[in-house]
Amino acid sequence: MKVRIKDEFWDKRIEVVQKQMLPFQWRVLNDQEEGVEKSGVIHNFKIAAKEAEGTFHGMVFQDTDLYKWLEAVAYSLEIKEDKQLESWAQEAIRLIAKAQREDGYVNTYFQIFQPDLEWTDLTDNHELYTFGHLIEAGVAYHEATGDEMILTVVRKAADLLVSKFGYGKTQGLPGHPEIELALLRLYHLTEEENYLELAKYFILERGKKPNYFIEEPKKRIEKKIPSWLDVMWNEGFVRPVHEGTEDVSYYVASKQLVDQMVAEGHAVRACYLYTALADLASLRNDSELKDAAERLFDNTTTKQMYITGGIGQTWKNEGFTHDYHLPNEDNYCETCAGIALIFWAEKMLLMETNSKYTDVIERTLYNNTLGSMNLEGESFYYRNELERAGKDVKNAGRPGWFGCACCPPNLARLILSLNHYIAHYGKNGNILYLDQFIGATIQGETNEGTYQLVQEANMPWNGNIKVTLQQFPEKMRLGLRLPEWSASFQLKVNEETMIEGVDFTINRGYIIFNHSLSEGAVIDYVLDLQPRLAYANTLVKADAGKVAITRGPIVYCLEEEDNGNHLWQLAFREGTIFTEQKTSELQGIVRLNSEALRDESLTHGLYSYQAPKKKQQSISAIPFYARYNRSVGEMQVWHRVADGDGNNK
Amino acid sequence: MKVRIKDEFWDKRIEVVQKQMLPFQWRVLNDQEEGVEKSGVIHNFKIAAKEAEGTFHGMVFQDTDLYKWLEAVAYSLEIKEDKQLESWAQEAIRLIAKAQREDGYVNTYFQIFQPDLEWTDLTDNHELYTFGHLIEAGVAYHEATGDEMILTVVRKAADLLVSKFGYGKTQGLPGHPEIELALLRLYHLTEEENYLELAKYFILERGKKPNYFIEEPKKRIEKKIPSWLDVMWNEGFVRPVHEGTEDVSYYVASKQLVDQMVAEGHAVRACYLYTALADLASLRNDSELKDAAERLFDNTTTKQMYITGGIGQTWKNEGFTHDYHLPNEDNYCETCAGIALIFWAEKMLLMETNSKYTDVIERTLYNNTLGSMNLEGESFYYRNELERAGKDVKNAGRPGWFGCACCPPNLARLILSLNHYIAHYGKNGNILYLDQFIGATIQGETNEGTYQLVQEANMPWNGNIKVTLQQFPEKMRLGLRLPEWSASFQLKVNEETMIEGVDFTINRGYIIFNHSLSEGAVIDYVLDLQPRLAYANTLVKADAGKVAITRGPIVYCLEEEDNGNHLWQLAFREGTIFTEQKTSELQGIVRLNSEALRDESLTHGLYSYQAPKKKQQSISAIPFYARYNRSVGEMQVWHRVADGDGNNK
Repeated sequence: MKVRIKDEFWDKRIEVVQKQMLPFQWRVLNDQEEGVEKSGVIHNFKIAAKEAEGTFHGMVFQDTDLYKWLEAVAYSLEIKEDKQLESWAQEAIRLIAKAQREDGYVNTYFQIFQPDLEWTDLTDNHELYTFGHLIEAGVAYHEATGDEMILTVVRKAADLLVSKFGYGKTQGLPGHPEIELALLRLYHLTEEENYLELAKYFILERGKKPNYFIEEPKKRIEKKIPSWLDVMWNEGFVRPVHEGTEDVSYYVASKQLVDQMVAEGHAVRACYLYTALADLASLRNDSELKDAAERLFDNTTTKQMYITGGIGQTWKNEGFTHDYHLPNEDNYCETCAGIALIFWAEKMLLMETNSKYTDVIERTLYNNTLGSMNLEGESFYYRNELERAGKDVKNAGRPGWFGCACCPPNLARLILSLNHYIAHYGKNGNILYLDQFIGATIQGETNEGTYQLVQEANMPWNGNIKVTLQQFPEKMRLGLRLPEWSASFQLKVNEETMIEGVDFTINRGYIIFNHSLSEGAVIDYVLDLQPRLAYANTLVKADAGKVAITRGPIVYCLEEEDNGNHLWQLAFREGTIFTEQKTSELQGIVRLNSEALRDESLTHGLYSYQAPKKKQQSISAIPFYARYNRSVGEMQVWHRVADGDGNNK
Repeated sequence: MKVRIKDEFWDKRIEVVQKQMLPFQWRVLNDQEEGVEKSGVIHNFKIAAKEAEGTFHGMVFQDTDLYKWLEAVAYSLEIKEDKQLESWAQEAIRLIAKAQREDGYVNTYFQIFQPDLEWTDLTDNHELYTFGHLIEAGVAYHEATGDEMILTVVRKAADLLVSKFGYGKTQGLPGHPEIELALLRLYHLTEEENYLELAKYFILERGKKPNYFIEEPKKRIEKKIPSWLDVMWNEGFVRPVHEGTEDVSYYVASKQLVDQMVAEGHAVRACYLYTALADLASLRNDSELKDAAERLFDNTTTKQMYITGGIGQTWKNEGFTHDYHLPNEDNYCETCAGIALIFWAEKMLLMETNSKYTDVIERTLYNNTLGSMNLEGESFYYRNELERAGKDVKNAGRPGWFGCACCPPNLARLILSLNHYIAHYGKNGNILYLDQFIGATIQGETNEGTYQLVQEANMPWNGNIKVTLQQFPEKMRLGLRLPEWSASFQLKVNEETMIEGVDFTINRGYIIFNHSLSEGAVIDYVLDLQPRLAYANTLVKADAGKVAITRGPIVYCLEEEDNGNHLWQLAFREGTIFTEQKTSELQGIVRLNSEALRDESLTHGLYSYQAPKKKQQSISAIPFYARYNRSVGEMQVWHRVADGDGNNK
């Protein structure tokens, strides 16, 4: 399947990433960007390749910045030729290949800084994680360009792991998952069983007793082998897990995956691992693994996910806490975790078509993920809180490039691979499902023949979607996602209204045509984008008595700039009607305007027996993703609702 | 003035402290209480006194457990003779005296464990703090019993400090204040100017540039002198302030006290220091110091105090954060901080009669302080959060005696000295103000002559107060506090109704009789204890759209045991009427019962466009102080209010 995006909303974002972010990141990787903290990435590789002298700079996983960049470049080249990008990528690949040891090992931190510590601390040293990102980048680059040099590097690296780890070999598991999904990607490309077997080992051994993440640190400490964290510690970093603890949920390893009832631990680690779990379940058609993947996905998205699609309720473990615990302040919602959730949802979808997966992708994409970047693509959130108020509001804006730069390149690779999320085949390949309403040309070939169609859309502002079937085999069927946010829909083919039960069936959140569609058919699919107030499950303490403003997939927020400060003083009447205001501000958004009641400030005194006086105020909400593009100040997603007993409707 | 309490509510609590807590604490100090963590306190003193061998055990401030116990015993003996307690106290004093060095120094940590480090780290080593508690205990014990041995110890200790520190001598300031208020207490007793001068030095030098708490650690680190925290650090404690920081607000030293606009830092430290500031301001009649003390008190109590009278909004510094930031979960409200606020308020009152001080004392006493202890006086909170929910609810009960046992003995000394808080003289001594409605006999002598009166009260359950003037000089006037929680009052003398403007004037929250009261007069003063809903200032985000249930000075809470779990699902209608239910449960309380609306739980799904259904539910509130005396579970002080626009009243 080949999907080429042509979409007003996304084209400019893809262009920002291609034209601004990727060149900017290349300069950062080369320490050529003034005013940005030194990255040392390329220089580390040059030292390892013996093309430069000096000392290692950065984190133990510093190499992955280059790999994620290279992966993003691969997607970019898949979309559009770019000689400059390609030549940078070639230079990067050459350096990686030269830095790689004869045995396949490549990791500049250990090669040039702590060679004695190679493979001594899989728990915290991110070594397998770093191999994983190399493999992902290499597979993507080979798939996009056919480049053989990177594939050779990647296979050498993967073969090293295969020779070293697994059943009957060295026992070892990665503290930060990533290698599992990467090996499976390499297996999809190469069909080399060894890669599948090693991925299976990493996935299925995790959480077994004796627990690797309890035993390895113990042995390491007994032997007085330092961890890279001992280095970081001296620089003021906080250890994620204190030594000696037996709680390894941070590593998503409290139990075997098939026994995990709730998503746990560091959210990025969890979702990378669960992504691999879903892929493995599909590959092996293993119902126990499928059930585990679905159970964990349902737990994550129906008990531990923010309305913005963000996950990770606390900064303490950068991850999951417990069901229905969704504080709107001091939470984490890391950009990388949201992206990882999208990866995971896509693997779930390929296992079984269900709009619950594509709804989550859309929710996370338009809110947590998109909003992690400013409109110009120059500054980035790692954390995506739903509420900012109080003294720290002055720090609420997006920072620029960080030393620990995991999120921006992750964002780049997601946005440039959006075309992979627009459609998928059903299991036996005769249904083509349209998943995301992003304008695109989709073409491909199945057992039924070749097809080509054009999807035209103006989401997220307009709900009218038009699909033109330029070529479509008679035996092929079409499926259209019916998103959860649309209260109703209209469906016409060649201007004739389609009837449920006659023309189509709704199954697992998808409209599936019951009959053939002729070539040249034009489908008009109209979704309902009327603004709606959303409520959280009443088990969520943080959102009790509150509502969020939404329109289609977009979650809105109130900013101080539009609504004054002390946003918690505002309450909406139930049944509040919002008017839509299309504006060119903030690169073009639909504002939602209405009235709310504000508790007036008392001039003095802390407690009284007098209910606050209320006055009516106009309010204006903007999309959450567009927050903090004008000024810093308060921001709020969940708002109090007045008239809680519902008698005043 | 001699005040003897006879009060149904307080007598049993005083008795618990006298009969249970003090003997229990003595056993703990002697490591004779099974199942309680070893304290080592008496053993440390025995080692220092060369009556035992062994090593130091405990914190750097371990000695203060004995001093606070001794101070409490002093108050107990003042109330009631007790040969057993007295003989224990004598043994303690003998040991302290024997442990004291010839030069007056006494601190078992340094004497027997780290003699080289004496006076090397005033910032964190609590050395002056420990001297302060010795002095406070000694003054109290001498005042209660006339004992000379302890006074000699105390004067020797204080004279050592006088010879060492101050203007023109060694410069040094205590990281944890306490010595200031103790030296002033010793000055009140002895009228020795040197003690006043040294207290003044400690109070007025704090916060001057170069800042002692920046400079001392720097020099100490340069000279590689370890701190006791380096010892603790290895045991897993977290340093309160990271080395190298220039933010010394934790030490209440960001500025000189006269320049501090808001209360800052560790709450106990702040309030001990501010207590001394108020006392010094009174003693010197210094308007700049008075203004500073009042400004800081007003800031604390009108911008940073919980409705329970608790202070300290976060566990991070165990102290203040910023104005109107009053989160109900994850806050601190340390028992010792509430007690320190009472000390401070009392000093403010002696500077100027104003019910704002005595209202705060009452609020803190009946809620934050009283509730820190269980009803049997066997277990204690250090933290007094206003809301408990979620996963950690299983740990919500009061723990027993801790290694860091600051709070329980502090509580003991407060409860046994309650008689010091019942009445005070106006500035020129001719007005006797009744401050707290606790049954008591009050007698004394002023320039106008001797007086004796009996106050009968059944607070906090009954608002009828009866004051009988058994002896009362003609020129003396009587003042009665009009508490902020009483919506109205009735006042009769010998059954004749008193008229405002004719018989009395209300000034700064006190009713002051305009005329003489004859001996034998009986005053009936009826306060209004009708249950009332309280609202927080609308600048308080955490309490927006919420109410607290109160009755007189008592703040109520909902517990899971009475109201089911998920308390956040409940909302009260505005204008909800509460019925009072006197019960013998929980040693006798008045329950407040009413109806509330509960958002019903949905069976599945996290977000929807459907407002939750509501059903009516009976609810029953109990006093906050009586919380967690039955079972652990959720607990909540601030409740949502439905009908926020007020149209449904």
